[in-house]
Amino acid sequence: MSNYCIIMAGGIGSRFWPLSKNNYPKQFLDIFGTGKSFIRSTFERFLPVVPAENFLVVTNAAYKELVLEHIPEMTPNQVLCEPMRRNTAPCIAYASYRIQAMAKAKGETNPNIVVTPADHLVTNEREFQRIISMGFDFVSQPNHKESLLTIGITPSRPETGYGYIEVAPEERGGESRVIEVRNFKEKPDLDHAKQFLAAGNYFWNSGIFIWSLDGIMTAFRSFLPDMVSLFDSGAELFNTDAEQQFINEKFAQCQNISIDFGVMEHATQRFTIPANFGWSDIGTWGSFYTHAQHDADGNALLGNIVVRESKNTVINIEPGTEAIVQGLDHCLVAYRDNSLLVCRLDDEQRIKEWVEDLSKQ
Amino acid sequence: MSNYCIIMAGGIGSRFWPLSKNNYPKQFLDIFGTGKSFIRSTFERFLPVVPAENFLVVTNAAYKELVLEHIPEMTPNQVLCEPMRRNTAPCIAYASYRIQAMAKAKGETNPNIVVTPADHLVTNEREFQRIISMGFDFVSQPNHKESLLTIGITPSRPETGYGYIEVAPEERGGESRVIEVRNFKEKPDLDHAKQFLAAGNYFWNSGIFIWSLDGIMTAFRSFLPDMVSLFDSGAELFNTDAEQQFINEKFAQCQNISIDFGVMEHATQRFTIPANFGWSDIGTWGSFYTHAQHDADGNALLGNIVVRESKNTVINIEPGTEAIVQGLDHCLVAYRDNSLLVCRLDDEQRIKEWVEDLSKQ
Repeated sequence: MSNYCIIMAGGIGSRFWPLSKNNYPKQFLDIFGTGKSFIRSTFERFLPVVPAENFLVVTNAAYKELVLEHIPEMTPNQVLCEPMRRNTAPCIAYASYRIQAMAKAKGETNPNIVVTPADHLVTNEREFQRIISMGFDFVSQPNHKESLLTIGITPSRPETGYGYIEVAPEERGGESRVIEVRNFKEKPDLDHAKQFLAAGNYFWNSGIFIWSLDGIMTAFRSFLPDMVSLFDSGAELFNTDAEQQFINEKFAQCQNISIDFGVMEHATQRFTIPANFGWSDIGTWGSFYTHAQHDADGNALLGNIVVRESKNTVINIEPGTEAIVQGLDHCLVAYRDNSLLVCRLDDEQRIKEWVEDLSKQ
Repeated sequence: MSNYCIIMAGGIGSRFWPLSKNNYPKQFLDIFGTGKSFIRSTFERFLPVVPAENFLVVTNAAYKELVLEHIPEMTPNQVLCEPMRRNTAPCIAYASYRIQAMAKAKGETNPNIVVTPADHLVTNEREFQRIISMGFDFVSQPNHKESLLTIGITPSRPETGYGYIEVAPEERGGESRVIEVRNFKEKPDLDHAKQFLAAGNYFWNSGIFIWSLDGIMTAFRSFLPDMVSLFDSGAELFNTDAEQQFINEKFAQCQNISIDFGVMEHATQRFTIPANFGWSDIGTWGSFYTHAQHDADGNALLGNIVVRESKNTVINIEPGTEAIVQGLDHCLVAYRDNSLLVCRLDDEQRIKEWVEDLSKQ
């Protein structure tokens, strides 16, 4: 049974300004200074379970060269370019039609697909690969060829920044096994997040999906028939030289909808594998701070920095620069590409607003 | 009677790091964003009372080109290069020997000289020029050809960062007239500074001196005879092609001493003109903050900056960069030439120490 991986890498990640910007989004950053960008780490993390030629990265044309720089193992043909952002359902539909054409050409029937964001952190890659393999095994069973599987994460805190997956109360504390999903919950407020954590039958929604090609195609046909008609009208063009032009002409007509709302909400055979492989979506400076290494005063430092009388502060400056930082508590100092940010870490959700103010003036 | 101006521009101004650095000291900065550097402003401030060809800038050879960029009205010959820093007495002695040679070549007898640092702020230039002219008039009187005059500044606060000039109690509150100096006082502690302010017969020492060529030469001969012997040994080489080599060979032998300790302390005919022309030596970020324009929250901003929930904070970033700063109170944020500083304004006297720490790591 062959496995494919769709890496969704269209985002901009403006919450990481000034490290991430339109011309250099978050997935291309090496925010921890490990020597590998998020997208590179994502590719390497799946490489033991998906052959290099079966990866597809869906992104904006503006980032195609960057993607190939970060993953030179891929051919240009493996980078799918959306002409505009249309949320995750059209992104996954496009890549699924391509996989359909690729599988047909190779004589494969109903390959497995894993779909993943490009910008997550995983600290236990071996456990990660074990869970993904378990998911592939599950969806390749004949009686689960229409099942849709989401990787859940055992929560460690009442996080309000993630969506949750609810399973039956008797499945509380389940881990490393396939459990039927009862409900998807959007990002909760703190009270609900605390209840979810205490209840034990709620897991963070990682945004990583596993299914068979037939499974997702059947779901698209059932729940997003207009989108399917649109892609069906050029089905024979996928994996040919005419594909890009077809996408450029038609993609704008796709409904702007997430895979969660467009498909998962309505599906009946929904499953999760709760897992624990040191996951974070590092969607914010706060989550970066949580996962970064700290000095004795709780500072997370990256760069050539002298820090004095400061604590619980993130300082992240680009190579070739230097900084002296003194007298800050629970703040963020970031510098990249001629842009500087100094703010309270607790107010980081307003970065986007400030960046807009800056671009206006 | 002809007038000469010696601009002392050898300093580094490391207290303004990262704006000032070894390769770009404070005198070349446009720290207020007026479009003119300190040295340029100094030149223009004296230009109505000293002809352009009678300026001499004493600096390090490394800064010669920078000086000429900032003051294109001067010829390379007017920039005197010290091979190393030897404090103000050797600097002024060197320039005085040059002026002696220049005056001789032009048939001038005993010209007036004003000596000034390169990095002061003056807000009322017309009043400044009136005071300097008054000083020139004074030292060109036959009975004052050996008098040494210092410009005093009427103090507006009990400043501990400046030296003071003491005059007789009956001269308290004197301004815009020549008064005999009783004593020079080094930088006082706060209690003494308060006493000086209350007493009224103490003025800030601006470090601007006015005297005649004969007056300062006589003083050097009396109080620094070794230095005079050194320069006398090549007296005929000044203002010739051999001058620089002579200086390069001999300058290191000069005693490292200030004009204040080497000459002014010992002189008998010492005078001051207390003045009030909006003067500051802007020796620190704190004095910069005092003199800069403030927004409604007391912030002094220079650059393309979005500032939120911050007060009494200095933000100074170089052209071509942008910054978002939020949540700071009484802090300093400065960026230039790949170096960033964020610290409490009250701790700015430690910048030098931190810069050393940074260079060590």
